[in-house]
Amino acid sequence: MTGPVKITSKAEVEEFLSKYDNFLFDCDGVIWQGDVLLPHVKETLSLLREKGKKLIFVTNNSTKSRKAYTKKFSKLGLDEVTPEEIFGSAYSAAVYLKKVVKFPADKKVLVLGESGIEEELASEGIQFVGGTDPSLRRDIGPEDYDAIVPDPSIGCVLSGLDLHINYLKLSIALINLQVPETLFLATNIDSTYPTHGKLFPGAGTMCAPLVLASKRQPISLGKPSKAMMDCVKAKFEFDPVRTCMVGDRLDTDIRFGQEGGLGTLFVLTGVNKESDILDENADVVPQQYMTKLGDIFELLH
Amino acid sequence: MTGPVKITSKAEVEEFLSKYDNFLFDCDGVIWQGDVLLPHVKETLSLLREKGKKLIFVTNNSTKSRKAYTKKFSKLGLDEVTPEEIFGSAYSAAVYLKKVVKFPADKKVLVLGESGIEEELASEGIQFVGGTDPSLRRDIGPEDYDAIVPDPSIGCVLSGLDLHINYLKLSIALINLQVPETLFLATNIDSTYPTHGKLFPGAGTMCAPLVLASKRQPISLGKPSKAMMDCVKAKFEFDPVRTCMVGDRLDTDIRFGQEGGLGTLFVLTGVNKESDILDENADVVPQQYMTKLGDIFELLH
Repeated sequence: MTGPVKITSKAEVEEFLSKYDNFLFDCDGVIWQGDVLLPHVKETLSLLREKGKKLIFVTNNSTKSRKAYTKKFSKLGLDEVTPEEIFGSAYSAAVYLKKVVKFPADKKVLVLGESGIEEELASEGIQFVGGTDPSLRRDIGPEDYDAIVPDPSIGCVLSGLDLHINYLKLSIALINLQVPETLFLATNIDSTYPTHGKLFPGAGTMCAPLVLASKRQPISLGKPSKAMMDCVKAKFEFDPVRTCMVGDRLDTDIRFGQEGGLGTLFVLTGVNKESDILDENADVVPQQYMTKLGDIFELLH
Repeated sequence: MTGPVKITSKAEVEEFLSKYDNFLFDCDGVIWQGDVLLPHVKETLSLLREKGKKLIFVTNNSTKSRKAYTKKFSKLGLDEVTPEEIFGSAYSAAVYLKKVVKFPADKKVLVLGESGIEEELASEGIQFVGGTDPSLRRDIGPEDYDAIVPDPSIGCVLSGLDLHINYLKLSIALINLQVPETLFLATNIDSTYPTHGKLFPGAGTMCAPLVLASKRQPISLGKPSKAMMDCVKAKFEFDPVRTCMVGDRLDTDIRFGQEGGLGTLFVLTGVNKESDILDENADVVPQQYMTKLGDIFELLH
């Protein structure tokens, strides 16, 4: 078995670029770190566009819709990025319901999450309840224990990161999940949400109570799930062999690309380190890696 | 191997009672169902007291202190039951911290739960933060991501059923659990909370997010944990062989008694059915069982 190839010269960059027509990018740890754009990312993306490459930004963040997420790009000076180039886990869930499940038009999705999920469901014409509904942002009351019953109009519980999680919402979701026919989806099941240099509870912690109490597992629509890859492929119709997944996390990004049959490029500006892939017991090894995404621009110039 | 003995006659009740000096009772499904006292329970408890038996009521409910829990008994006409006869999982956690861990007097417990936990910690002179603190009953704000840091005065995170759970509290608990020295306790890890004929999220669903995100497991102080049995034994100093655990749930009550070396009596007024123990693949089999606790009184008269 050959180890991962480290790209360190102009010739190696040119060879790398010749292999792919499409690039899928993870964002945090690849494009930016928190609120800081990484060096020469802007120039690298422009260069790829000039060479006619297709760019897709794949994120597990479900709190923002694709449209809202472009604001993050333009705030960092990446004005060229359009909503059509962004593929978030909330959109992934909406596409999955619409295209794969063919979710009935007369059924509703019970959302445990923020407006990003609501906007993406609406964009696919899928009905929903819960989510940011202010009437659910309250304590459970004695009358709720009688009132909460399975709602036959609900065909799916979809959970993502919900910064307004409470016992009332968890109860409504659980009671509806006790109906075996109710679909159980998660935008993603990340255990933590890295921000401000710390690890806060991730989207997976919103469905963890439901998993425990319902004894059911959700289908995850975020990296590294195959369901998300199927949705990305359905939308963009690319040749996997001519496509490269770029990421900083081995267990999500690189695994996602590998299991989807894509090429993989690992960068050292995020969660995992060079030693993680050189370890002979490493679970997931990328095909190629470089210090940072901006190396593509720097090495070519 | 001999199967469980069904007690159906006066002679069998007399023989059963002669074997034990102490009785540990689960409450819901044994003493009452929801808000209804089960038939001839009052008479049975009086009869046991007249015969000089010691009675202890063991509950995983952590939302009420022992004192508050006696109100439930007196509301159902069981006025003789005193706080000293009640052993709840919140009290169990307080005893564990005080007697087993010898929790330092200058450290605090971060509580994820209701007033029952706070009152029991206070009764053992243990300092705490969180819990019902109204300043934590709010949404997480942008400034909190910077402000939440490990608090060196916190030596333990203790989670129980918290009907006011939110993302802010989960975040504070998680950031403190990322310090390996911080103890991680749970009053109990019941996956569901049976009430109103339905299954709502149980205390275990409050720590499930923390378990997932911290990759740590709490020590549970509720049935069927050995830690709770150790606390019960430390407090009441009974001879296990002369003590019988009475319960309606095989996987919590009967397992709890069995693993503690106690006798076990299973009753059919709760979660499990007669067929569950007669099944030859049954995991947990009680030594004795009867239709209901009130049979003791009925069969003797």
